Amino acid sequence: MSLEQAGRALADEASRFSALGWMRGTSGNLSVRLGDEPLRLAVTASGKDKGELTHHDVVVVDEAGSAVADQPDPTRRPSAEAGLHARIASVTGAGAIVHGHVLATVIAGERWPKGVVLRDLEMLKGLGRGAHDDEVTIPVVPNSQDMAVLGDAFEDSYESGVPALIVARHGVYVWGEDLHQARHRAECLEWILQFHLATEQ
Amino acid sequence: MSLEQAGRALADEASRFSALGWMRGTSGNLSVRLGDEPLRLAVTASGKDKGELTHHDVVVVDEAGSAVADQPDPTRRPSAEAGLHARIASVTGAGAIVHGHVLATVIAGERWPKGVVLRDLEMLKGLGRGAHDDEVTIPVVPNSQDMAVLGDAFEDSYESGVPALIVARHGVYVWGEDLHQARHRAECLEWILQFHLATEQ
Amino acid sequence: MSLEQAGRALADEASRFSALGWMRGTSGNLSVRLGDEPLRLAVTASGKDKGELTHHDVVVVDEAGSAVADQPDPTRRPSAEAGLHARIASVTGAGAIVHGHVLATVIAGERWPKGVVLRDLEMLKGLGRGAHDDEVTIPVVPNSQDMAVLGDAFEDSYESGVPALIVARHGVYVWGEDLHQARHRAECLEWILQFHLATEQ
Amino acid sequence: MSLEQAGRALADEASRFSALGWMRGTSGNLSVRLGDEPLRLAVTASGKDKGELTHHDVVVVDEAGSAVADQPDPTRRPSAEAGLHARIASVTGAGAIVHGHVLATVIAGERWPKGVVLRDLEMLKGLGRGAHDDEVTIPVVPNSQDMAVLGDAFEDSYESGVPALIVARHGVYVWGEDLHQARHRAECLEWILQFHLATEQ
Repeated sequence: MSLEQAGRALADEASRFSALGWMRGTSGNLSVRLGDEPLRLAVTASGKDKGELTHHDVVVVDEAGSAVADQPDPTRRPSAEAGLHARIASVTGAGAIVHGHVLATVIAGERWPKGVVLRDLEMLKGLGRGAHDDEVTIPVVPNSQDMAVLGDAFEDSYESGVPALIVARHGVYVWGEDLHQARHRAECLEWILQFHLATEQ
Repeated sequence: MSLEQAGRALADEASRFSALGWMRGTSGNLSVRLGDEPLRLAVTASGKDKGELTHHDVVVVDEAGSAVADQPDPTRRPSAEAGLHARIASVTGAGAIVHGHVLATVIAGERWPKGVVLRDLEMLKGLGRGAHDDEVTIPVVPNSQDMAVLGDAFEDSYESGVPALIVARHGVYVWGEDLHQARHRAECLEWILQFHLATEQ
Repeated sequence: MSLEQAGRALADEASRFSALGWMRGTSGNLSVRLGDEPLRLAVTASGKDKGELTHHDVVVVDEAGSAVADQPDPTRRPSAEAGLHARIASVTGAGAIVHGHVLATVIAGERWPKGVVLRDLEMLKGLGRGAHDDEVTIPVVPNSQDMAVLGDAFEDSYESGVPALIVARHGVYVWGEDLHQARHRAECLEWILQFHLATEQ
Repeated sequence: MSLEQAGRALADEASRFSALGWMRGTSGNLSVRLGDEPLRLAVTASGKDKGELTHHDVVVVDEAGSAVADQPDPTRRPSAEAGLHARIASVTGAGAIVHGHVLATVIAGERWPKGVVLRDLEMLKGLGRGAHDDEVTIPVVPNSQDMAVLGDAFEDSYESGVPALIVARHGVYVWGEDLHQARHRAECLEWILQFHLATEQ
């Protein structure tokens, strides 16, 4: 995937998520893997309205989430949260990561701060899990402005096969092989948590 | 109806339902009857984003929900759930069936697992029933990955004149003479269950 | 206003209300006054998807809500509910009436079956009322399939200056000088009742 | 910014907010600063559907919110609420102000009439505040039709660094350096209050 293709795909997804109310203000960010060894991610640029991105609004970051020297537009900055994107990509091997302020996920994180335990739901197949007898816990970690702290909390809570992380009083990270899969998993997770909030008192 | 017409109609409806949030991820599937004796249904192809289907994303299945040999594109697979579509079409004579993960229907199925009892609602006319003194029970059956099990549960619970089936912790099937009627019934059922959930404690 | 203009305006509003979820299935109907003495209304045709109307999908009715003999397309039928439109137009002098299955209004009718009492809300100005010290009761009448019964219940409950009527377990009628005002009042009433339901336990 | 540019920007934002349900009927109004000393604001014209504005539907007002003599179209009137826009612009130095009937903000004002106390939320950064250990109180003032009364209540409750004001049983004012920032803050505030209402019982 070229950087231009990545930029277009990220702008399209950001527009979609913005319309869903997941990227209020300039919040949220999306990334897609450009290369391995060394890891390179294309990440949406910081400070922009996510419903109005163009394919230029993208920054290439390294395995620490820092902008690499060679950029199409060196004036664009990655979000600080690019550090967590890079950490998640390194640990999980994900090809794409979406981070949004999805209301149901943050409410669920507040209600179940030790993790959201799910099972016996058809929609769990959308997260790559079983619809029956397969217990899945979506981890919830405390919010922090320090990406190293958040990254360590992510790694401590990470269990292979659970492609999502709720950051308390903040938002959610969801990942997959590519942007399509990450989108689908994010949409399924929102649905699941809306159901869970409505039925688990 | 030609297969191309069916494909276009299914893609249009899938796009509509996707925008309503009923087909999150790649979930849900729609079918329309192509012929009788032997039964033939056009079913949406599996594994696709339902907001992005084209008229090519369709598979012809038989009375068991299996892909027939003669397909425009033999690489496309029907959803496993095509088996339940075929069963519903056979038993009810429906011309079209929609299956989506409609949140209100699944919440209602969780709250009233023995069936959702409705009466005295104008909107019941949208399901082909009376607005007064006509009690309608929407059946709720346990979820299963085995379409024969789901199909038997459907038949056991089926009552002529009730064009919907809730699959617990999964989604809803709604059917009608054609896609338009199936759509209208699904939209009316969602409204009715939103009302029922808000008013029946 | 010519019948063609009326048809275009009705189709536009129906499309808008359909997108708001107020006209699920083929439910709901809109009317606009074409003439007085004798009263003539253009009413949306029955049995159509309200998001897909064209300016042809309109019927001219008289003061009883019956189709007049001279129609552009004599095959189109008015909704039975045209009788209530005509009654409301006669009694109130309204230039336009909208009827939809607006969820919040029907839930409010169920919670407050003797009428929904409102006061001290800025949004009441959108109904032509005062924002302070002006108590407004939105009447709620039982549902019926007999438009004479519904019409009598409307007249019994009607108070000049209250441009709305909730029909229990059915929907709402809202009227105004023209379609724009009827739309605005319907949108304001929905907002008010959403607020009222959320804050009045 | 020319008046025509201001008119186009205001119409675009009004259309966006209207689609979000924040400007039901003809409610709500937006303003952008045209000049200082003397203060001049471009304000959306009164009595229009906010989803249908053009760049002509704008009025230039002075520091009292009164229309200045020199207008492109002297027949257009500013909303009475332009007085509060002007007061907020004078006191806070804001470059743009949005006022809408945002449901979650009015429900929050009803539940916490002494002010809505917020802290430890990532989304507070969208209001220009800290995500940790930074308590923010969104003031709530009683509704009034007298802009001098509302303006005094605003000034009494105003604390530098809190760019929003809830008017009880009415709506919300949110401001920023420009329309983009005001929009972002309004969207973030709605999200925050939806979260707060769902989690603070």
